[in-house]
Amino acid sequence: MIIVMKSQATEKQIEEVIRWIESVGFTAHPSRGVERTIIGVIGDERQKEGIKQAQRLEGVEKIIPILKPYKLASRESHQGNTMVTVGRVKIGGPEFVVMAGPCAVESQEQLLEAAYIVKKGGAQILRGGAYKPRTSPYSFQGMEEEGLKLLEQVRVKASIPVITEVVNSTDVDLVESYADILQIGARNVQNFPLLKKVGHATKPVLLKRGMMTTIEELLMSAEYILAAGNPNVILCERGIRTFETATRNTLDISAVPVLKSLTHLPVIVDPSHAAGQWQYVIPLARAAAAVGADGILVEVHPHPEKAICDGAQSLKPEKFYQLMDELRAVSSVLRH
Amino acid sequence: MIIVMKSQATEKQIEEVIRWIESVGFTAHPSRGVERTIIGVIGDERQKEGIKQAQRLEGVEKIIPILKPYKLASRESHQGNTMVTVGRVKIGGPEFVVMAGPCAVESQEQLLEAAYIVKKGGAQILRGGAYKPRTSPYSFQGMEEEGLKLLEQVRVKASIPVITEVVNSTDVDLVESYADILQIGARNVQNFPLLKKVGHATKPVLLKRGMMTTIEELLMSAEYILAAGNPNVILCERGIRTFETATRNTLDISAVPVLKSLTHLPVIVDPSHAAGQWQYVIPLARAAAAVGADGILVEVHPHPEKAICDGAQSLKPEKFYQLMDELRAVSSVLRH
Amino acid sequence: MIIVMKSQATEKQIEEVIRWIESVGFTAHPSRGVERTIIGVIGDERQKEGIKQAQRLEGVEKIIPILKPYKLASRESHQGNTMVTVGRVKIGGPEFVVMAGPCAVESQEQLLEAAYIVKKGGAQILRGGAYKPRTSPYSFQGMEEEGLKLLEQVRVKASIPVITEVVNSTDVDLVESYADILQIGARNVQNFPLLKKVGHATKPVLLKRGMMTTIEELLMSAEYILAAGNPNVILCERGIRTFETATRNTLDISAVPVLKSLTHLPVIVDPSHAAGQWQYVIPLARAAAAVGADGILVEVHPHPEKAICDGAQSLKPEKFYQLMDELRAVSSVLRH
Amino acid sequence: MIIVMKSQATEKQIEEVIRWIESVGFTAHPSRGVERTIIGVIGDERQKEGIKQAQRLEGVEKIIPILKPYKLASRESHQGNTMVTVGRVKIGGPEFVVMAGPCAVESQEQLLEAAYIVKKGGAQILRGGAYKPRTSPYSFQGMEEEGLKLLEQVRVKASIPVITEVVNSTDVDLVESYADILQIGARNVQNFPLLKKVGHATKPVLLKRGMMTTIEELLMSAEYILAAGNPNVILCERGIRTFETATRNTLDISAVPVLKSLTHLPVIVDPSHAAGQWQYVIPLARAAAAVGADGILVEVHPHPEKAICDGAQSLKPEKFYQLMDELRAVSSVLRH
Repeated sequence: MIIVMKSQATEKQIEEVIRWIESVGFTAHPSRGVERTIIGVIGDERQKEGIKQAQRLEGVEKIIPILKPYKLASRESHQGNTMVTVGRVKIGGPEFVVMAGPCAVESQEQLLEAAYIVKKGGAQILRGGAYKPRTSPYSFQGMEEEGLKLLEQVRVKASIPVITEVVNSTDVDLVESYADILQIGARNVQNFPLLKKVGHATKPVLLKRGMMTTIEELLMSAEYILAAGNPNVILCERGIRTFETATRNTLDISAVPVLKSLTHLPVIVDPSHAAGQWQYVIPLARAAAAVGADGILVEVHPHPEKAICDGAQSLKPEKFYQLMDELRAVSSVLRH
Repeated sequence: MIIVMKSQATEKQIEEVIRWIESVGFTAHPSRGVERTIIGVIGDERQKEGIKQAQRLEGVEKIIPILKPYKLASRESHQGNTMVTVGRVKIGGPEFVVMAGPCAVESQEQLLEAAYIVKKGGAQILRGGAYKPRTSPYSFQGMEEEGLKLLEQVRVKASIPVITEVVNSTDVDLVESYADILQIGARNVQNFPLLKKVGHATKPVLLKRGMMTTIEELLMSAEYILAAGNPNVILCERGIRTFETATRNTLDISAVPVLKSLTHLPVIVDPSHAAGQWQYVIPLARAAAAVGADGILVEVHPHPEKAICDGAQSLKPEKFYQLMDELRAVSSVLRH
Repeated sequence: MIIVMKSQATEKQIEEVIRWIESVGFTAHPSRGVERTIIGVIGDERQKEGIKQAQRLEGVEKIIPILKPYKLASRESHQGNTMVTVGRVKIGGPEFVVMAGPCAVESQEQLLEAAYIVKKGGAQILRGGAYKPRTSPYSFQGMEEEGLKLLEQVRVKASIPVITEVVNSTDVDLVESYADILQIGARNVQNFPLLKKVGHATKPVLLKRGMMTTIEELLMSAEYILAAGNPNVILCERGIRTFETATRNTLDISAVPVLKSLTHLPVIVDPSHAAGQWQYVIPLARAAAAVGADGILVEVHPHPEKAICDGAQSLKPEKFYQLMDELRAVSSVLRH
Repeated sequence: MIIVMKSQATEKQIEEVIRWIESVGFTAHPSRGVERTIIGVIGDERQKEGIKQAQRLEGVEKIIPILKPYKLASRESHQGNTMVTVGRVKIGGPEFVVMAGPCAVESQEQLLEAAYIVKKGGAQILRGGAYKPRTSPYSFQGMEEEGLKLLEQVRVKASIPVITEVVNSTDVDLVESYADILQIGARNVQNFPLLKKVGHATKPVLLKRGMMTTIEELLMSAEYILAAGNPNVILCERGIRTFETATRNTLDISAVPVLKSLTHLPVIVDPSHAAGQWQYVIPLARAAAAVGADGILVEVHPHPEKAICDGAQSLKPEKFYQLMDELRAVSSVLRH
């Protein structure tokens, strides 16, 4: 941590700050500049939160943290890439992984039809929500446990692993008994009791970035899961909230290479929620493959015009097959 | 809802859209304009989500919802102002209400000292967190149930109602047994299982706007609580996330008059979390009183430099007394 | 400036960085921490831009500037408050100054009627645009020089100073010959040729913050004017662009105390452009007075429903009189 | 345009609004819904700004514009893609166009060296700034006319077309006499006098989206140039300002397909300014090619560590050659 003193700070104030730093167990390293003094604070600022109260001392202008606040998620702690294994699928390895399916589980017919489309296109994992976090209390909230059972049936029948969302810490055990990957949605990225709970699960966790979560905060949320003992975390960029309204959210495509440099965890992209309109999903998915993501999570529905939710952003089967062809083309020249 | 057709939409496409609208139980009201046709859709769009899939029909450019998505929270459903009563305090009435205290419950001494300061200054409610949602898993997470017990002791000793945060649906019953007001924090504003749970509580709920939440979404979250049966909801503006980093968040002061025009619920302001630095708390609190808020939630600590969390934004006792004097001055000329 | 080395940086890389710092005329002050080395760079980083290229050196993680990039605008360079004098009006002194009038100059009748309303209400300065920066090339672009002449006539007839916008460096001399204060609009806050030009003017400049300008960038733009020789700069917060669409922009009310702490220049607020709807203008103006602004710039129109532009956000005369009464009440208890 | 009446609007208010609409030359088309009446307003709302003042009428809740505010830039007015021709280069056609070079013209040696690198890599156009809009008045402001002369010399010697920025309407004629493409920078995207001026130029214009500009506003700015008579406008996405600080700006990659659907103009991407760090430029450039952009504008410097500006985001020659190889690979599978 660095403490920047005000330009008018007195020598006495500087000495008080140094004394205080040492009294709380750190080492002070002052550096007198042209206009002001800065004081390097040596010690692990993550271990002792109280050090931040230095900001209250007389003559202090501001404090600047230096250490990254996450450890287990950082590439510094783990140089190689983490690969998350789900059956025969490896996320974060050489293969570009596609998780596809409807927004919500609606019926066995719908889900089974979706599963066959997803498999036929060549995707590796089936998605489908049984618990739906909805902005309105009057909207469809998902089929809940019944939806989980349908997922399980289709998972076996179509022989494909499934990913599904969990929205409440009390449901984690139940969802884990049905799903291959637990999904944490954007609105729960800082639901810390839920993060701790899935940190104790044995299944991998896909953690979506929130609409207004910084990349650093996303890594801190991953740290909650890792620190609780679950090493299998997949990060997912799905668009952030900005002033632009032409798309539902603004896909922060740069987050992929930034995350790749900061962390060893796999990073995928959800172009469907970012775009909000199916027309933009295919180009955004191509961009995700080109920028270096490890895969995508994409909404496909056998009949989007009848979908209970997110019909506008779901791909029809033929568009999904086109997407898969284009992704294979991009991957063939970039991933080896 | 209004359906805007593309300028090149054919007559056949328009007719198909009209037929579809009627097939799902709504009435279509087309209007041929200079460049394009728009179709008014008459019926309650909140009742039937499927109507949104109209966006998938051929020739449709976009759909524009007209009805507000919330009902119980709207001023249209309830013309007068809702007053929330906590003991002898009425929030949303003529009095400007101050809820003050430390970020976290740290010890009985600290909390009792804070309570006396808060009462001496003239504030009506004591705040203090027993469960703390923290960005880092390595930060202090609150004293939890022990903290609730300290709150209860001080509440009785100092004879002042208390407000405290609840972060998990499984803790609601426990927190409710100790607190006078249940606080839902910014990160949980769209934690729908938690909202439903406090919707069944008998104590009032203070609902903080999230950093990323629009005013409409905040009202939808309030709607979750109201729809579950709890009519006593207090809304709290606490700053939104923007590109500006000079303050921790950007206090959206306009949200107060906007909310006042849209809803009958009381609206208060948290200047401490918005500012992130104590120097700005007093002017922002004055602005809150002047703009027409019903009160504030403010952090005060007997010894901010020793605070376990949020010391930088907590007021010292003398600054708090100054704040209370200034608020009384502003209220005296504006609230009657 | 501080250079933060990567945690894996070698001793050789650290030495190279130190050598490089010294080769460009600065002094290096390394500090070996627990996980990484940081190097304090002593010297005036504002004088030599090239120092920023340190970021390209091997082993460097990031650089952190310490000195504020503005000098003349900073409170450190000028402890007292700057007062800008326009006739008998002093902006930045004990009086709360109101600049009011229509968005655009439309006709002599309109402007004269506005001037009498403005004076009757007790405002000190008349606003009115002759050059209008409009998003659409098909919108009214202002009466231009003809509008300036009308301003001049009304200025004399009603005996009130006027403020009007200048949008092009080639118009500065002309506008200066008519106006008492030159206004730089939000979209021109980083139009550097225009800033340099008004920096050579003899009339005071009101500089509006852009919709996406940080507070620091606003001060850098003020620095352009100050550095060119014009010391009379008034800053104006008028709302920033965020994800919230309930108001036209989000009034960053906190910018007022932040600017007051960073600079000696007067700071006013434009509640009309921030709100975009007249209903919210009065509470926001009260908030501006309460938060410590030196005045407001507000749109008033004799007949808003006939206004050529910004009718929705203009106050009618009776509402303006009410506003002035409320501002006097707030100022009476806070400004002395 | 649609006028949404308040739910409590009286029949008399509705009639008044209809009468008013007709009095200003439009046709009213009311539609009585379940909760409120909406009134379709038929006529070209772009021709008569005054229609917006309908918002002031009694009983009106809000107005919703339906027509796009731009005409010449819209795909509806011009179905095919516009190709902008610069010598033998066609921007917006089947070829992916790369414009590369240093941030600023620094010397003949530097520029000539850059030109050879750019040509060797296979890029079609040389970039280099002679006028630099800088946040600080103390930063290097460009070599100005001298820089233009160097550009001209290198343009001839290396036989490559050049693009350079113009920052002031008074410089347009001069810059036009040297450059093949006139660049309007992000900070000038709403400098309307400058847009009008380049609208009268005979050279093509590359218009950068501002940090704060919506896609619709960008198209309105293009409309200024088109309406003044210059049909050769190239749009450039270069990152918008958001809360995320890990990159200099947030590249809005979705803007490419959105623009492609709304306009016939070519769309390119500037990955250098979006990223702010060279490490992220290559993946973002690949994403630009994959998402369907017509080209990129990228910073390359023979010796980035000695660059006067933007050294941190400039590619070294070998990295630039790698970028060109990767772009060719992506284009080979996607552009045909």
